[in-house]
Parts: sequence; structure tokens; C-alpha cells
Amino acid sequence: MLKLSKYGSYAGNPIEEEDKLANSIASKGKKVLRLHRGDPAAYFPTPKYIVNAYLHALRSGKTGYSFHAGITELREAIAKRHRRLRHLNADPENVLVTQGVSEAIMFLSASLTDPGDMAIIFRPYYVLYPTCLEVEGGVPIYVDCKEEDRFRINPDNLRKALKSSRGKRIKFMIFSNPSNPTGSVTRKQELSEIVDIANDNDIFIVSDEIYDELVFNGAKFTSLSEVSKGVPSVIFGGASKGFDSTGFRIGYAIFPETDRFSKEVRERMAKYAQMRLSSNTPAQYAFARALNDMSIHQKTVASMVKMIEKRANFTSDLINESEFMSSARPEGAFYALARINMQKIRFKNDEDLSRRLLIEEGVQITRGSGFGAPGHIRIVTLAPENQLELAIRKINKFFVRHSK
Amino acid sequence: MLKLSKYGSYAGNPIEEEDKLANSIASKGKKVLRLHRGDPAAYFPTPKYIVNAYLHALRSGKTGYSFHAGITELREAIAKRHRRLRHLNADPENVLVTQGVSEAIMFLSASLTDPGDMAIIFRPYYVLYPTCLEVEGGVPIYVDCKEEDRFRINPDNLRKALKSSRGKRIKFMIFSNPSNPTGSVTRKQELSEIVDIANDNDIFIVSDEIYDELVFNGAKFTSLSEVSKGVPSVIFGGASKGFDSTGFRIGYAIFPETDRFSKEVRERMAKYAQMRLSSNTPAQYAFARALNDMSIHQKTVASMVKMIEKRANFTSDLINESEFMSSARPEGAFYALARINMQKIRFKNDEDLSRRLLIEEGVQITRGSGFGAPGHIRIVTLAPENQLELAIRKINKFFVRHSK
Repeated sequence: MLKLSKYGSYAGNPIEEEDKLANSIASKGKKVLRLHRGDPAAYFPTPKYIVNAYLHALRSGKTGYSFHAGITELREAIAKRHRRLRHLNADPENVLVTQGVSEAIMFLSASLTDPGDMAIIFRPYYVLYPTCLEVEGGVPIYVDCKEEDRFRINPDNLRKALKSSRGKRIKFMIFSNPSNPTGSVTRKQELSEIVDIANDNDIFIVSDEIYDELVFNGAKFTSLSEVSKGVPSVIFGGASKGFDSTGFRIGYAIFPETDRFSKEVRERMAKYAQMRLSSNTPAQYAFARALNDMSIHQKTVASMVKMIEKRANFTSDLINESEFMSSARPEGAFYALARINMQKIRFKNDEDLSRRLLIEEGVQITRGSGFGAPGHIRIVTLAPENQLELAIRKINKFFVRHSK
Repeated sequence: MLKLSKYGSYAGNPIEEEDKLANSIASKGKKVLRLHRGDPAAYFPTPKYIVNAYLHALRSGKTGYSFHAGITELREAIAKRHRRLRHLNADPENVLVTQGVSEAIMFLSASLTDPGDMAIIFRPYYVLYPTCLEVEGGVPIYVDCKEEDRFRINPDNLRKALKSSRGKRIKFMIFSNPSNPTGSVTRKQELSEIVDIANDNDIFIVSDEIYDELVFNGAKFTSLSEVSKGVPSVIFGGASKGFDSTGFRIGYAIFPETDRFSKEVRERMAKYAQMRLSSNTPAQYAFARALNDMSIHQKTVASMVKMIEKRANFTSDLINESEFMSSARPEGAFYALARINMQKIRFKNDEDLSRRLLIEEGVQITRGSGFGAPGHIRIVTLAPENQLELAIRKINKFFVRHSK
């Protein structure tokens, strides 16, 4: 029977859905401003000491398979990082190295979800959370983070959602902190309340902290592990963002708790990791080295965060000057989620708008509906100011042309 | 609800299941002979020209994300390889780059399988084929390749299996050629019959050809694409084995046909690839370079195949000299699947046997039941002769000690 799977129809990624169109426009000689993919390495060269460690690993013959859960040096370095920064009592056994956080999300969803199972996803969300759930036949329960709360998680909304979902098989809840796509940073108090609610309702918590060092505008980041008090949970992190090494494809899952269920999840995810044998081996040595050189790293990341803060605020200000858009000032990551005043323009929805913007102006952003925020667009704010300015100017021009 | 998924309980990999035990034995100072994982890079250094291309990519700043389906240079090089070696009329559009063949198998299974769907798996099989099917809720239909047929696919057995499965939702059939774990190479005639049967029954064909250049003892390899005559199908390949770069995690899927369904499968698998954004970027440049340097490659691989043939035959001879074991002479890959005379020894099964062998003799092999061949063990025949000899001697000593 020549027929695709039903669940597989959920696969995909709105961030990349216009890549082919963008490539075809670019191949015709038109410049495309690509503000759709959160890739710091496209603007900030990956630090030399990390690249050198990668070169060294290759020259030393580290080209074969490595242990499915990650090389010991890297797992130890990750555990040490969390011991030092988050006062988390972790050792290498608590760590699973994955091919980017993407793979960690896939393995987590697959480990917990059978068809019909549910998970709580805070909205706006990173695109992969519902997708990875739905390809397993799972069903999301969305809990909204409101613009008036600056997109932070509101524990009351979580309580309400749980009340109306009583009796349902809710397997986990997932959010990113700092948030992709909103740039919000969840406060300690809110995080603490979420933990209590998860505990009362036997729900496993997934905190995606891949942007944990990219925090600014005075915000203070709190890791889930600092408030989790024994509640079954996992934290995701990796080399891609703070260590500016997206193309390495090295992420990780660290399990703060030693309860029976966290251990079961860890072992299950490791079984998925066994299936693909190994992550890229030399890249693991590179990331291990980067983590062990914390003094160089702290200097490097501090200077990158400063630039990111400047560019984020610059973009946010330009957006708020527009009569067509508005945006909450971000506190972390490198995205601006801009609300579009859809009343003023002639587009059916943000998908239509994003596609036309790419075709007419050569500006590639991501439609907000891909993150559960219809009527918005997500702009990556990593480019130099002149490019960001040009992009916003083009977007405004485009809106004027299509205004009602 | 703190509960793992039901389908996820199928995750895992028998090849790696004793890694922890082996590590713990090794950490106590005992030498472990590791003949369980098919990693040529552990014995043959990855060729310099490939490593140099990797170094060059890193030095040129190729550290960010790349296109989800793979960089154009690599897809073009893969298409060219198949045009040249297999007379396959392919262009980069037919190629999807994956994180090893493992990921290609995962994406393929997920693209086609809903719970209750079935797939035909030729047995003995590579461990991942049933696992990737079962984690999706799929159900395998096994078609046996018999020892008396030297483990080659017998089309009559396939016909019989299809007759008794009439009306079932059979989505695909999958086999490796050359075969892991048996080392058999499917003949052109048999391959051609399989294609006809698939065509008559509307079943998508998956031919895992990762060992396609590791063929010896006079055997001749035929790619599925040479006989597929428009039948919907996909071929898997990659850098790991013939290019001796397992730790890069670069594989690919190439679709020989241009029929509507092959195109649908390709697009669906690419949607899965979008979810994890990118494969390791610098490793893709390295593999592209390796593929474009075919004259160096052919020399390198020829000398490696010569060594592999010698070691495979050496192991096979030693196995057949044992009163406890026998093995068909392999024609490709680098495995010996040894039948154990279970009547002569005091073990419940091959799993029990393999574990005890590791504990008592420090020899790590893989239990045959992991490949659908209970009463067998799989030995990786890549190590130098003195190690292989030592391992077989230890295995024989172990059997004598446990003989009835």
C-alpha cells in the first residue's frame, strides 16, 4: 500500500518552509535578507578556542563512533557547568548528549507519548514542541502566555487549563526559558509555582534552557533546577546558542532529580540515543573543551550578549515606531515577536503576509502562526543594525503598499 | 501522569546494550576485546584527504546551520556518485542528507508508519529496522533468509509471506545489501524478482546500501537502482563505512524514481529533516570532498577492502574450525554471523551466552537474537588478525568450559 502515515503529516518546520522559495529568489540575483533562523554563527564567528579544540580532536583521530550517551569528558563538563552555575548536584550519569536540542525534544516526546496522550505547551511556543508531540499521535493542550504579561508564564492560566483537562492523560509540560519566540524570561516565583502545580498533578516538566546565557535588559535567569525540589523534570541545553556553534549539532538533556520516574525517562531517552549509535564525535570534544574553559567563555559570551542586547533593543524600538507593528521588549534569546495590526493591511493571515514579504521585498522572517502566535511575525535580531534597519524599513514599505 | 509511552518500550539497540557492563569491566583494569560495533575508524584511520577537508571547512567558518536537506555541494556529489557508479539519473533534488543512515531509517519509518501498519523485514536484519517500525506502533512481517541459501534473499519466501498477509496494510520492505549481519550480497536476479513482487503488491522498497563498496570474495554488488525500473523505492548510503568516517554522522537517502509516491516519501522525510534544522555542517563539506576525489577514494577503499576480506576470511575459517560454531563465508560488509551449537553448551540462549562471555572472557560481541538470529552471535571482523584469533580462542575456551 503506497500511502504515507497519518501522524507523519504533522512533520515540518515553519521556520524552514520558505527556504526553497528564498533560495530560488536568491538564485535569480535578488538579495534576500534572512532573518528567519536563529543562527548566531551566521553573524558572530564561532570562537577560535572552540574551533581549535574541534581541529585538535580531528587531528587526534577522533573520527569514529563514540558512546551513545556522549563521551565522558563532555558529560562531565556539562555536569560541572550545572554544578557551578546552577548549584545542581549532577554527575555525568545525569547527562545525555544529543544531536542538538531538536533531538532531545524528539526523544523526550517519543519516550512519553502514545497516540491520544496529551502534553501542556505554553503558547507562543518553539515550533518543535507541538510537532514532536503530534507526530507521535499526541495532542497539545495550550496554555497562553499573554502579551500583557510580557509573554511570561502565568501560573493561573496553567491551573485553569488543568482544571478543564481533568482526567486526561497529560504526560509532560514544556516551555523554553528564555523563550523562543518571545524573548521573555520566566521569573523565579512563577517557575516555583509551576513546579508546585506539576507536583500536585504528576506532570513531568521539560525546561528548554538553550538560551540560558543570552539574558539582558536587566533580567535574571533562573534555571528550573534551582526551584524544582525533587519534581521529575529535565533541562535541555547545548552548544548551539551561547557557544555559537549551531552547525555542530550538539545538545544535551540533564536530569536534575534522582526520583524513579526521572531515571526512567533518562534511560528511555538513552535507548533512543542507542538507536542512532553516536553523536558527531569530534564536535563533542570541541564542546567539552569550550565548557572547561569557562573564563574565556564568559568573556566571549559577555561581549556577544552585549551586541545581541543592542541589536534586540534596536529592532524592538524600530518595530514600536511603526504604525503597523508592536513588540514587547525582549529579555533574552535573539528574537522579536512583532504583533501585526492586521486590521490595517490587506492580508488574509500572517502566512500569506510572510510569503508575500519574501517575494516582494526579499525579507525572510517566520510567520507567527508557526509559534502559535497568528497575526505576528518572528524576526531574528542577530544581524548588524544596518541590515535590521533595512529589513524593518522594507517591512514598513510593504505594509504601506498593502494598507487598507 | 508519570508514565512512559508503550511504543517507546521498543527503543534500544542490542549492539550497545552491554556497553555499560563492558565499560565497568574495562574500568577495573581488565582488557575488553570489543568486537560488537561496526566501526572501521577504530581500526583504519579515516583517510587524511577526508580529515583535511573537514579541517578546511572548520577553518573557513563552516560552523553554522546548513540547509536541512544537506548542502548543495554534498547533494550534488552524492548524485554524481550514483550517476557514475550506478548509472542512476539523479540530481541533487533526489538526495536528502541525514545524520547517519540511522536517521534515514527513523525518518522513513515515521514517514510511512501509523500504529498497526506493517512492513516486511528480511531476517536476519539490521537491528534498527524492526525497532524503528515498532516505536511507531508498526508490526514487522519477517521473511527468512536461510543459512542454506547463504543468507541471500529468496524471492519465493517473500511471495509466500505476502500470500499469507493478504489484505494487511504493508507499507514498505527493507533489507541491507551487502547484509549486516550476514555479509551476504543479493544477486541481481533475486533483486530483480523482489522489484517485480513489490510492484505487483504496491510496496515501497528500502535498500540500505551503506556497505556497497565493501564487497569481496568475488561477489558482485548490484544496486537496487540498477533493476528498480520505476518501482517506488529509496536507497540509503553514507560516509560511515566505505569512507571510514562513522563519527561524522553523515548519511543520505537517494530516490532513484520520479514517480509520485517516491516524491511524496522524499518530501515527507525532508519535513522530518526540517525539524532538526541541519546535519553537522563541516562534516558535510568533508564528505562532499571525499566523494569528489574518486581516484584517491578508489585507491584507499580498495586497500581497505583487501584487508577487510583477509580478516573476514580469517575469522570465518577459525569459526568453522570450532566444534561449537559455524559460519557462512561473507561476501561483503565486515561481520561474521556465527551459528552456535546450542545443544553442546549449557546456556539458556544467545543473550545469556553473550553476557557471560563478556564477563568471563572480556569479549564483547552482539547476540544474534538482536538481529533476528537466535542461537547466533555477530562478530565484527575489523580487528587485526592477532586480536581476532585471540577472541575466537577465548570464545572456544569459554564454550569448552560451559560444554555439556
